[in-house]
Amino acid sequence: MDRIPILRIGDILLVSVQFDLQDRIATALQEDLAARIVETSANGVLIDISALEIVDSFVGRMINTVASVSRVLDAETVVVGMRPAVAITLVELGLSLPGVRTALDLDRGLAMLTGEQVKAEEIAGTDDDTGGTAAG
Amino acid sequence: MDRIPILRIGDILLVSVQFDLQDRIATALQEDLAARIVETSANGVLIDISALEIVDSFVGRMINTVASVSRVLDAETVVVGMRPAVAITLVELGLSLPGVRTALDLDRGLAMLTGEQVKAEEIAGTDDDTGGTAAG
Repeated sequence: MDRIPILRIGDILLVSVQFDLQDRIATALQEDLAARIVETSANGVLIDISALEIVDSFVGRMINTVASVSRVLDAETVVVGMRPAVAITLVELGLSLPGVRTALDLDRGLAMLTGEQVKAEEIAGTDDDTGGTAAG
Repeated sequence: MDRIPILRIGDILLVSVQFDLQDRIATALQEDLAARIVETSANGVLIDISALEIVDSFVGRMINTVASVSRVLDAETVVVGMRPAVAITLVELGLSLPGVRTALDLDRGLAMLTGEQVKAEEIAGTDDDTGGTAAG
């Protein structure tokens, strides 16, 4: 196991973290993710941590770094599937993930990111996509 | 690492296989997946194996079993992200996955499954869903 696969759903990249991240894999993930954001012009990153039962400060900082790098590359990061115990640990460690948005599950995270895309398109005033956004 | 997390995207369940499956984890995955299909009324299962560089007959049979169980529970299985070398190995092992559909990546797999849903709804003749598809 060298690298965590990065999946793509439309303009969103999805990373499912399934085991404790060691230094090398975390670094590889950061690099891969930055490269994929640029390569695919993704505007959102979803990080699913529902498999993680515990997190330490290293993982907390890793999430923060990934979010910051993504933001610089114009992609929003949403962390999904955080367990209650993990949330408590993160706050106790002083890592309240200030710049990171969270959603309860993948579905809501996707809705959060794609909802924003729709809004951004409306603001951009493209008038050829009326089919997709259904004005009522 | 006890279990592989099962993610949900709308009516589709997503499993990202990131490492070689041993007996215990594969069995747990089959059970979890069957339970989740029933629990969420999912009608599609996407199995991403883009992280697998090699597969053996055990993994091949596991994929077949998952697909068969899903079919019995009225959910279609699509395997996505298969590497060329894995495809060759599977066929050489005599496992051409007859009942399993495949797609090049997650995006296409999702389109395959959700496209079918749309078709099924059209056939069912529900006429109250015009709101979602932008009436002018």
